[in-house]
Amino acid sequence: MAESRTKILLDESQMPTRWYNVVPDLPAPPPPPLHPGTLQPVGPDDLAPLFPLDLIAQEVSTERFVDIPGEVLDVYRLWRPSPLYRAHRLEKALGTPARIYYKYEGVSPAGSHKPNTAVPQAYYNAKAGVRKLTTETGAGQWGTALAFAGALFDLECEIWMVGASYDQKPYRRTMMETFGARVHRSPSDLTQAGKAIRADDPEHPGSLGIAISEAVEVAGQDPQTRYALGSVLNHVLLHQTIIGEETLLQFEAAGETPDLVIGCTGGGSNFGGLAFPFLREKLAGRMSPAIRAVEPASCPSLTRGVYAYDFGDTAGTTPLLKMHTLGHGFVPDPIHAGGLRYHGMSPLLSHVYELGLLEALALPQTECFAAAVRFARTEGIVPAPEPAHALAACIREALACRESGEEKVILTALCGHGHLDLPAYDAYLSGRMVDEDVTEERLAPGLTGLPPVPAGA
Amino acid sequence: MAESRTKILLDESQMPTRWYNVVPDLPAPPPPPLHPGTLQPVGPDDLAPLFPLDLIAQEVSTERFVDIPGEVLDVYRLWRPSPLYRAHRLEKALGTPARIYYKYEGVSPAGSHKPNTAVPQAYYNAKAGVRKLTTETGAGQWGTALAFAGALFDLECEIWMVGASYDQKPYRRTMMETFGARVHRSPSDLTQAGKAIRADDPEHPGSLGIAISEAVEVAGQDPQTRYALGSVLNHVLLHQTIIGEETLLQFEAAGETPDLVIGCTGGGSNFGGLAFPFLREKLAGRMSPAIRAVEPASCPSLTRGVYAYDFGDTAGTTPLLKMHTLGHGFVPDPIHAGGLRYHGMSPLLSHVYELGLLEALALPQTECFAAAVRFARTEGIVPAPEPAHALAACIREALACRESGEEKVILTALCGHGHLDLPAYDAYLSGRMVDEDVTEERLAPGLTGLPPVPAGA
Repeated sequence: MAESRTKILLDESQMPTRWYNVVPDLPAPPPPPLHPGTLQPVGPDDLAPLFPLDLIAQEVSTERFVDIPGEVLDVYRLWRPSPLYRAHRLEKALGTPARIYYKYEGVSPAGSHKPNTAVPQAYYNAKAGVRKLTTETGAGQWGTALAFAGALFDLECEIWMVGASYDQKPYRRTMMETFGARVHRSPSDLTQAGKAIRADDPEHPGSLGIAISEAVEVAGQDPQTRYALGSVLNHVLLHQTIIGEETLLQFEAAGETPDLVIGCTGGGSNFGGLAFPFLREKLAGRMSPAIRAVEPASCPSLTRGVYAYDFGDTAGTTPLLKMHTLGHGFVPDPIHAGGLRYHGMSPLLSHVYELGLLEALALPQTECFAAAVRFARTEGIVPAPEPAHALAACIREALACRESGEEKVILTALCGHGHLDLPAYDAYLSGRMVDEDVTEERLAPGLTGLPPVPAGA
Repeated sequence: MAESRTKILLDESQMPTRWYNVVPDLPAPPPPPLHPGTLQPVGPDDLAPLFPLDLIAQEVSTERFVDIPGEVLDVYRLWRPSPLYRAHRLEKALGTPARIYYKYEGVSPAGSHKPNTAVPQAYYNAKAGVRKLTTETGAGQWGTALAFAGALFDLECEIWMVGASYDQKPYRRTMMETFGARVHRSPSDLTQAGKAIRADDPEHPGSLGIAISEAVEVAGQDPQTRYALGSVLNHVLLHQTIIGEETLLQFEAAGETPDLVIGCTGGGSNFGGLAFPFLREKLAGRMSPAIRAVEPASCPSLTRGVYAYDFGDTAGTTPLLKMHTLGHGFVPDPIHAGGLRYHGMSPLLSHVYELGLLEALALPQTECFAAAVRFARTEGIVPAPEPAHALAACIREALACRESGEEKVILTALCGHGHLDLPAYDAYLSGRMVDEDVTEERLAPGLTGLPPVPAGA
């Protein structure tokens, strides 16, 4: 049954009140994080300097569902449930018999899916008596989300922003400051990690890995300060499942079932948030969609990385995470989708990939921006560069359906708008954008610095 | 009855299918536009080189309701009905017993209310066989809206952007180009009006009045090209009444009646769009809200202008409009709310003001940005500088209610987000923003260049 509406909305009374944890439904448990010193699985005590106990409990939870606190639901209602759109105009422009749906997270205060986890992270920290949160941000979407959440729960928020982005994206910094956060250019002189790098190169452009090292270092020094991460970890993906849970209800209201679920992957939280509830339904035999992750050709952790234990940051201060990684010393080309420029992939998503439960695909950025412009001129929304990758994969599939005549139902996550990414559009429209690929030399032996981990770990 | 929900949503099946024309409900008809040569009321023939007949008919209509074409409703569904919010968190932060509601138009593709009229304008032009639309834009919100609408109806779109904004806001230009428009810096060498100004000053920063002159000149030269205006005119306000009509339904669903309706006024289309349906209800005795327009102290056309016939543009090429005006030669101080920097006020709104049916208030910009930051840190949305004026007036009223104990129901229009206005926030947050006022010397005899109009006209 085809849905004729443009938007499928839920009333806030229909908003799901539980997050979904995919772990107990998987055929095998994911490998645990390891302590970098002992190479033993980390325990709650190892994580307590960085995260409050509620979040640590969620990180290792084997419960299928976790109740969303009322205070978090109250904030979610500022923008949730988010709309599910039927892309009638894009379908028509493509001449495809496929039916394309997109779940739009750009309606949030930060303009992306990131507040879905920033809000509960701020809530649990405030509840634990924490006074200040530190974090890193690359393109600025995560920092904006945490700044917003911090404002609501009266938490100070101190953000290390990757130097190159700090210099090139002053608007993003202003948005974080509007929400009340303090923003530092990383590497900074405020940390040992930053100082060490600046000693070699005072103008160092920074990286996400370096900014993480700085934020973690500062959080570890003060008992009333904790650290917040915007992707990669289990509790982050857990919070993002509100996306997929809402979408299931919306598909039910539309009388549709997806044949294909497509999302973009950087650290993996947007993709996991959309896909895991659908994976549950698939594992239970209630539907059978293909599930496809799309990553940039210039940072192809799932498609060309190795599955190994690696650090989450550059300085090597985090626990070791088993994930698809390009090596924590890998420096991605400066592509415009800053949210996808991370050397590793969520361990949980990596595990699901290893189990053969999802497909992965890497796309060059000019194809993604061409898709984004096509989308803007038909559907009206200017997408962020990250979901432009998912849209490009949708368009590939829709055009294949035009050839085959298949009426596939395609679902994707439009995880944010591109209002603060317009310089990348300018680069594309003016022909200055080039596709950069990763040469084999950089990948092998480019997987630098992986620590020795016993084969059995 | 107090509404406890955060958002009052309408399904797209509940979207109003008619625009409302306030003219037949007013105790006296508004004075007609005059031909600048003959000083006689303009007829359809005078306007035909600029607008298609359907829009001219709407401009002079005395029908109470105008059906919205199905093709326009189809596009409106991309973002309409827009949400009505109850500002629970702002109320709590202010400690007020007032109940504050805001109708949010930032969910549109252009991020403001402007597509409400850009879409029907593009539709009627396309229907009339027009191939290209020209327009001006200041801050860029109107140009973005028309570029979006042009993309959907296959119209070329050529936009003259005020030079100062063109130089300072490259992101806005990129957004228009993403939707497929061509954007020129105004004054340009493409028109006589532009060349004359550039001959005196090649680096002239431009003005809205100059950009209008250029767009009108180009439209007048080609039978397949027409001109589109984003505010001021009757048909523009007509299209914007979808805002107020939806809000009436949402108030009914919430079981509330407003005591006060507040909006910001530049050309007047956002304010008229929200207020006129409520004015109808008031004139019919079904409710009795106060209706209040808020303008910037630096461009105070309603509160300090004269009510007189004046040109809509700088070069003096448009019909003469009876309106509250600071004189078409008036150059506003460079305040950050670009959408409010226009020398005149909608003739229809001016007429309603003269009839004593609304109040007006002028506010300094630092108070408005303080209100905007307070709003962002409680409600999560970073407002555009224009509706920040309305929010500041809301906060004044809510604080008065805290003193008096009155449980007033306040409604305002949050007509756009501020994602592309962050440099203004940076100026405010860093203490670089100053309040500029208009000295008496500039106002009187600053009302320069008003043409001689017979007293009886």
